[in-house]
Amino acid sequence: MKITAEEIYKSIESIRRQAPVVHNITNYVVMNSTANSLLAIGASPVMAHAEEEVEEMVNIASALVINIGTLSERWIHSMFKAAHKARKKGIPVILDPVGAGATAYRTKTARELINNEPPAIIRGNASEIMAIHDDKSKTKGVDSAASSDAAIDTAQKLSEIHKCVICVSGPTDYIIDKEKIMKIKNGHPLMSRVTGFGCTASALCGAFAAVEKAPFAATAKAMAVMGIAGEMAAKTAAGPGSLQTHFLDILYRLTEDDIKQHLKIDVLLKN
Amino acid sequence: MKITAEEIYKSIESIRRQAPVVHNITNYVVMNSTANSLLAIGASPVMAHAEEEVEEMVNIASALVINIGTLSERWIHSMFKAAHKARKKGIPVILDPVGAGATAYRTKTARELINNEPPAIIRGNASEIMAIHDDKSKTKGVDSAASSDAAIDTAQKLSEIHKCVICVSGPTDYIIDKEKIMKIKNGHPLMSRVTGFGCTASALCGAFAAVEKAPFAATAKAMAVMGIAGEMAAKTAAGPGSLQTHFLDILYRLTEDDIKQHLKIDVLLKN
Amino acid sequence: MKITAEEIYKSIESIRRQAPVVHNITNYVVMNSTANSLLAIGASPVMAHAEEEVEEMVNIASALVINIGTLSERWIHSMFKAAHKARKKGIPVILDPVGAGATAYRTKTARELINNEPPAIIRGNASEIMAIHDDKSKTKGVDSAASSDAAIDTAQKLSEIHKCVICVSGPTDYIIDKEKIMKIKNGHPLMSRVTGFGCTASALCGAFAAVEKAPFAATAKAMAVMGIAGEMAAKTAAGPGSLQTHFLDILYRLTEDDIKQHLKIDVLLKN
Repeated sequence: MKITAEEIYKSIESIRRQAPVVHNITNYVVMNSTANSLLAIGASPVMAHAEEEVEEMVNIASALVINIGTLSERWIHSMFKAAHKARKKGIPVILDPVGAGATAYRTKTARELINNEPPAIIRGNASEIMAIHDDKSKTKGVDSAASSDAAIDTAQKLSEIHKCVICVSGPTDYIIDKEKIMKIKNGHPLMSRVTGFGCTASALCGAFAAVEKAPFAATAKAMAVMGIAGEMAAKTAAGPGSLQTHFLDILYRLTEDDIKQHLKIDVLLKN
Repeated sequence: MKITAEEIYKSIESIRRQAPVVHNITNYVVMNSTANSLLAIGASPVMAHAEEEVEEMVNIASALVINIGTLSERWIHSMFKAAHKARKKGIPVILDPVGAGATAYRTKTARELINNEPPAIIRGNASEIMAIHDDKSKTKGVDSAASSDAAIDTAQKLSEIHKCVICVSGPTDYIIDKEKIMKIKNGHPLMSRVTGFGCTASALCGAFAAVEKAPFAATAKAMAVMGIAGEMAAKTAAGPGSLQTHFLDILYRLTEDDIKQHLKIDVLLKN
Repeated sequence: MKITAEEIYKSIESIRRQAPVVHNITNYVVMNSTANSLLAIGASPVMAHAEEEVEEMVNIASALVINIGTLSERWIHSMFKAAHKARKKGIPVILDPVGAGATAYRTKTARELINNEPPAIIRGNASEIMAIHDDKSKTKGVDSAASSDAAIDTAQKLSEIHKCVICVSGPTDYIIDKEKIMKIKNGHPLMSRVTGFGCTASALCGAFAAVEKAPFAATAKAMAVMGIAGEMAAKTAAGPGSLQTHFLDILYRLTEDDIKQHLKIDVLLKN
């Protein structure tokens, strides 16, 4: 399996042409930057969390992104309801288990969502992915305290059990299913100094999964675009403030050539 | 009727001098950019949604902006309470029916607000305005699926029934009451790639309505300023990220000359 | 007592090295910019408001920042719970009484928090600080209607009663305890045209208090850094939009030399 710059760009063109509605039930901190990133890539973001309307919103959406970054009871209830509807309708669900491992509440919510409404894609940092599977794992707030390598084994198990694609993001992003591991080495350290870039990555997985049937390829394409845009943005950024601004500008203008010049992707087949 | 650059600028000067308190009950996605736009134009934004305090907050405000972008039961309750108080006190209420037509919950909430607490100004895209009046209309998430032209008839009816000013925003903005239609042709397509510019427009209607008695003129001035600042910002923006930044900078520094140079306004009298 | 550029920079280095978790229960408007400012200075921000998890989140945090900018009942409940836990654990609590004096709900909440769970640091504008102590004081929305000078007496009383450090922020920032008043004259008027800079200041107090035992020194250092970064950002900003961007960039790159060149600090001993 190989993901080429050409294929990535084709998906971007599909997003720009179709402007798929991506329904986000996400955290308060990143709603604005998430919506802006989805708009910049060409998608049509929608945010709705009331149990009275989430099913209807899923109905007009092409993907559902659930992010547990600022949880509370009613929101959890709506997340289940929306995820259930999305699975029945057959649109991809992307889960971002923000801060799983930091509190029992988050770990429990992430696990119950995965067990009851298995998503197509789970994207988190190493700590979060490990916390979903392993009670001994700890998360430092919402930042990762574990190395990505350590999370790969766990991710493979999770992928097999729940039949979903797992992305362990970090300096290298790993996209994992039961047969293969794809490494994406794009991105820039400064990106960790901007809030919500992880959440944006999950939202972009939603945009790509809306136009690309295979969740593995959709995740790989989203993470590659995320990393490339971040890398290009970092080149001229004076710090995290301008990085966010440039990132949106670059996402909007991203060309096939940009992707060709920057893409750093590796595939390992699992034995 | 004519709105001149000079009159628009006079209202800006009034906003800058008086710094009117604009109370916003708005959605999570745009709270930050809305507050920043109101501060940039010279107003004093306040956000408060608890039923325990909305009436008191209305009491110190000069305009109330209600935006249904991320609804839930308690917020709706507070919206009614605040709108009722605002009408009793005699300050203008501006309604932004975000996503009306996308879900029954939003359509119903928008209609009930309009029926029970008629606002002075309603600003929405074509789909949203049509959905308020017409059950057959559909909204694609929070983006418009209808043309502005199609919404004008509906807007005229709504304006007559509810005795309010309607703004149908889009590539051309239409400001409508039962006697006239004003077209504003400012703005730039890139603005649709930034989340919350519509919400910002509604908030600016609040700022202008706080210093300008006639809701029609206030709406026209706000939409002209919005479009001009967006247009000027787009000239040097590299994409939607820098557009947002430039927009705030330009809003803050906007001069009478800027308005004179850019204003594109037309009035049609209704027969 | 004197705070030097060298000492301020040492604390910044500690923050950058330790990346302390700062738990924020704050308002919707500023969550994104607060998180970005904490990341830019080197801290590890976390936002969590559900009563199910706030205690556990406090448990992994080195400081707790409570900001009452968009209140509601459940959030208040969580604020008390988190503050109680933080005091028991022995980590500093910073309170930002946004809009105290504007509504009875905010004034009451701020006072009850201070009486029942006395914070280490309270940071507010003159109106807010006065409203905590004095029923006759009025706040214009969330902007100050009082002069800083008028609030100093009140702040001294509050500091003595509640054994906490008070910061009255404004064109000059005053850091006050029962023995001394420190004046910081950094900052720039344009900062008042960006939403949430006050909230960012409170969050930075949290970051500095996480690595610096004395709350007075932590507050002074945070306010100096805030003012200096704002001042430096304003030099090249074209308005409030770029000010926010530059501020984050500068916060991230701030050097000891920057602080030396800009620091404007004065100490008065109380008689």
